[in-house]
Amino acid sequence: MPRSLLVIGTGLVGTSVALAARRAGVTVFLADRDVTAARVAESLGAGLAETPRSPVDLAVLAVPPAQVGPALRDAQLRCAADSYTDVAGVKGEPERDVLRLAPDPVAYVGGHPMAGRERSGPLAATADLFTGKTWVLSPSARTGAPALRAATALVELCGAVPVRLSSGSHDAMVAVTSHVPHLMASLTAARLGEAPAGTETLVGQGFRDVTRIAAGDPELWADIVRSNAPAVAAVLRDVGRDLLRLSAAVDTLAEPGTDGHDRAVRTVTEVLARGVAGAGRTRQDGAAGRLRVVLGREPGALGRLLRAAAPHGVVAERADPVGPGDHELVVHLRLPAAASGAALAELRAAGWNAGHAELTSLGPTT
Amino acid sequence: MPRSLLVIGTGLVGTSVALAARRAGVTVFLADRDVTAARVAESLGAGLAETPRSPVDLAVLAVPPAQVGPALRDAQLRCAADSYTDVAGVKGEPERDVLRLAPDPVAYVGGHPMAGRERSGPLAATADLFTGKTWVLSPSARTGAPALRAATALVELCGAVPVRLSSGSHDAMVAVTSHVPHLMASLTAARLGEAPAGTETLVGQGFRDVTRIAAGDPELWADIVRSNAPAVAAVLRDVGRDLLRLSAAVDTLAEPGTDGHDRAVRTVTEVLARGVAGAGRTRQDGAAGRLRVVLGREPGALGRLLRAAAPHGVVAERADPVGPGDHELVVHLRLPAAASGAALAELRAAGWNAGHAELTSLGPTT
Repeated sequence: MPRSLLVIGTGLVGTSVALAARRAGVTVFLADRDVTAARVAESLGAGLAETPRSPVDLAVLAVPPAQVGPALRDAQLRCAADSYTDVAGVKGEPERDVLRLAPDPVAYVGGHPMAGRERSGPLAATADLFTGKTWVLSPSARTGAPALRAATALVELCGAVPVRLSSGSHDAMVAVTSHVPHLMASLTAARLGEAPAGTETLVGQGFRDVTRIAAGDPELWADIVRSNAPAVAAVLRDVGRDLLRLSAAVDTLAEPGTDGHDRAVRTVTEVLARGVAGAGRTRQDGAAGRLRVVLGREPGALGRLLRAAAPHGVVAERADPVGPGDHELVVHLRLPAAASGAALAELRAAGWNAGHAELTSLGPTT
Repeated sequence: MPRSLLVIGTGLVGTSVALAARRAGVTVFLADRDVTAARVAESLGAGLAETPRSPVDLAVLAVPPAQVGPALRDAQLRCAADSYTDVAGVKGEPERDVLRLAPDPVAYVGGHPMAGRERSGPLAATADLFTGKTWVLSPSARTGAPALRAATALVELCGAVPVRLSSGSHDAMVAVTSHVPHLMASLTAARLGEAPAGTETLVGQGFRDVTRIAAGDPELWADIVRSNAPAVAAVLRDVGRDLLRLSAAVDTLAEPGTDGHDRAVRTVTEVLARGVAGAGRTRQDGAAGRLRVVLGREPGALGRLLRAAAPHGVVAERADPVGPGDHELVVHLRLPAAASGAALAELRAAGWNAGHAELTSLGPTT
């Protein structure tokens, strides 16, 4: 674990790193071109807004992608730290700049914590920002073992999960998982911005979820898009192709009496189904248990079962009538892996294995 | 309040309406073409899967948009209820079908509760689904006062807020707030579906939020898009125009050494800024109080203040150094309207008005 840290750039991410390090007892120094930001971070308890007198163990460059290379060069010229990492959302451009500009690229490893908030600046910072989140580390061909060790220790100190990826793989992936989703959220939100007064009264949770990240700082995000332009452009081309097909299909459906309505509905359904498949790849279910419960025909029986099971995170997946005259109902429950045993015990204790219900564990699934 | 209710279609919304009505003591009958769905709803305690012997006060047609007209005709031909409403996410097509097909359009008023979940079917139903949500009622030129009264009573019984809108206004608005956002979520999620293995490891909360609704039933949503095609097509055209500009700008940025990088960055920034403006229209802040706190230069002072204030929903909006040598820090806090007084009292009690801090209420803002 680093004993001393210098955070250069006390925005949301830099200040959150500093707060997490302070919590772990690390000595933290804070620097920002904007003196107010460093003062605010200091007042938040993120460290001291002072220049360290001797090199710190690790310096974190929490600056926009285009500034990582110049900031590393400046810091290395004044021997600010033994090792260096950054937190920019793009890894290729900083890596190229570092290899070109920095006196000692061996002491640097690129990093990107996959965590953020709609609010930016030090006032939005929190020591918990990275807990349980993925934090990519992208060693270049020059990165040395000490820098990688120091950065990995910082990631673990922040409660995040280090994942090693080349800068190229990282950038192609985040174009799909972060940059283009941000642009799609912005395009969606812009429609509301230009809709007639009152339209916002029909906004529900769905719209809020889709557009939440669109509230992010436009200049910061424009710089992220610029610095990852080749990968973002490729994904936008794919989106544009799908949108064109979809839009043509909906145009057909908008014309009464046009031929091809059935085909247009199939096109819309197909685009939606591909969305379902993509959304399915984000699930974090992990292994879970399943239970089969047989209920008699008694109004409310399933309601009572689910009320007993809900505190354990149990979800009913399917129910089918069985037996003579479809008299019984077989219900398939899904139990979260962590609480499977407890949920089962509690349901048995509540009488669900006796008389009017039967619980059968089908064992864990993956 | 209706004393008896018939729910036709025991999916997520129909079963949730039935559960809310049962909770309020209403007699509820359940019907569904899919006998299993009605049996499951009955077992959940949503009512009886039986045909009522005499007309109920209100029948709720919880069927897809294209089936509202035919279902109303069938129900009225067998005198199922005194009044009728539906819950379809589109209001123009059902209204036109009802005026064309139903024996008694006077007894019908269109309705649309702005609530949903990613999971569908009766097993996902909950009596709380509509609590605090907007529920649009769209009387046609023929709708009579008793039907509107009965539907309004149902909305209130479900804990929702009735909002009256013409079917045309409703459909134009939900194209912006619901249907196109769903399609955008699907287009975004589809990119992950077709990305290289491992890309999902970089999925964060942002991607999950943007794509959550993309998990919805593709056939149901294709039918919603079909039935609101003219309004959806118009919004998709606007999205397509923005996407084309954005995509061209990112293509320019992807080419090294191309002229026009500055202009392309401005285009990207402008699209993002319009997204920020649109997302801003969804805020539900209400009136709130503001507080100004002056802190001396003492590392961690602001951190202690925010930890004391956070339980009251207080957010720090801005901080500026002031005084000789920027010695003091003026922090602007935003208090939620509901808890303004309590937060202020608690902060004063914690000593924040004495000695090292000064609290000044600037009065409520709108």
